[in-house]
Amino acid sequence: MGYFHEGHLALMRKGRELGDDLIVSLFVNPAQFGPNEDFATYPRNTERDLDLAEKTGVDAVFMPEAKEIYPPGFQTFVDQEDLPDHLCGLSRPGHFRGVLTVVAKLFNIIRPHVAVFGQKDFQQLAIIRQMVRDLDFNIEIYGAATVREADGLAMSSRNAKLAPEHREAATSLYRSLQAAKDQLSKGETRAARLIDTARQVIEKYPEAAIDYIKISDPQTLADLPEVDRPALLALAVKIGEVRLIDHTLLTP
Amino acid sequence: MGYFHEGHLALMRKGRELGDDLIVSLFVNPAQFGPNEDFATYPRNTERDLDLAEKTGVDAVFMPEAKEIYPPGFQTFVDQEDLPDHLCGLSRPGHFRGVLTVVAKLFNIIRPHVAVFGQKDFQQLAIIRQMVRDLDFNIEIYGAATVREADGLAMSSRNAKLAPEHREAATSLYRSLQAAKDQLSKGETRAARLIDTARQVIEKYPEAAIDYIKISDPQTLADLPEVDRPALLALAVKIGEVRLIDHTLLTP
Repeated sequence: MGYFHEGHLALMRKGRELGDDLIVSLFVNPAQFGPNEDFATYPRNTERDLDLAEKTGVDAVFMPEAKEIYPPGFQTFVDQEDLPDHLCGLSRPGHFRGVLTVVAKLFNIIRPHVAVFGQKDFQQLAIIRQMVRDLDFNIEIYGAATVREADGLAMSSRNAKLAPEHREAATSLYRSLQAAKDQLSKGETRAARLIDTARQVIEKYPEAAIDYIKISDPQTLADLPEVDRPALLALAVKIGEVRLIDHTLLTP
Repeated sequence: MGYFHEGHLALMRKGRELGDDLIVSLFVNPAQFGPNEDFATYPRNTERDLDLAEKTGVDAVFMPEAKEIYPPGFQTFVDQEDLPDHLCGLSRPGHFRGVLTVVAKLFNIIRPHVAVFGQKDFQQLAIIRQMVRDLDFNIEIYGAATVREADGLAMSSRNAKLAPEHREAATSLYRSLQAAKDQLSKGETRAARLIDTARQVIEKYPEAAIDYIKISDPQTLADLPEVDRPALLALAVKIGEVRLIDHTLLTP
């Protein structure tokens, strides 16, 4: 979706390493924004993005117009029955239908052998992997690690929209994950307690409004009551007007 | 879906002509049958089908197991917003979602340059063409003309299930289309009148239960009140327990 940062550049470098020809898509996809979401204000800077892509060794940038991707009469969508009914999908109805549809189109237009996505959007990555399996796309999906700022904040184009006075609150997402991890390492495995620990770190900031903090099965994304096996700790928090997500994997 | 008849063989011959390698799919797709439909009793004869395919010059028959196509955890579906809300889609909820999903999978598994479908399933063909456009499949779709028995009955694997004493009623579908066409050629363009004419031909048979008779826009499948431009006359009728469809194109 553009407004490239170090996280995107890491995806590009990984793609450069994995493929012969490297194509980057740059498309703020209207179909994955809800009516009350930030499509209009999502940060954009095409010139800078193209410059960064070129410097990172990208062969081509796929930058369609919305009306080419969704021409009049467009009506075919890809959706899933279970994975979108968790985490971000609950507060963003239709979001993952928009993601799946545009990614299926991207795959058919570009026909890549490998596609690189960020692990930061954990649910998105899980949903894309499931689509690739279910619809038999002959594409290897590579999930690239989250890149963070020095203060732990996961890189996101939306960080550009954070008010300077909200920056510290934004870092509470990462710190809350660390606090839960610490508690787990001391022997607490009950999901409710770990989530509570994370919540307390974030709730110190009045500008932070928690959407969810969940401990889930990394495959099905269903809630786990107990971290007795590898688990996903994921959260979404609005800092002022900016919705941020982050996650970590917990191992008992 | 197998139980091959002359209509299928005509598709195969067309495919033989259009392609270098000809692959035929043979799969009774559970996802496109409703809970009260005839999945269990749909006619099957694999040995005969393989023999016919070989004799018609087919290079390979793609004949997966249902559990390979829909493994445990399968949850990704392709669907459309408008085209399924007409004609057969109204009495077969979920049917076209099942068709779209299995055809998308087939396309990704086989990766054909051209795919041949029968025009007999007019709505199915329209829906597949729309999916190819919307999801950017790089595949040419060829619609092959309906093949009919000497008495006009459109070839269908389901014809094998007709009771001999219902055969005459089954031919009323074709005759009803011809009757409406005749009336149109004499100057009647009102859809309601043409549909009524078709209905009368079918209603002579107590074993015939009309699901729908519609005059529609061939692109959008929406009802047309007047045949003042090319139109689709389509119908679905149950003859005893066997649901049959047929259609014709009307030109004023």
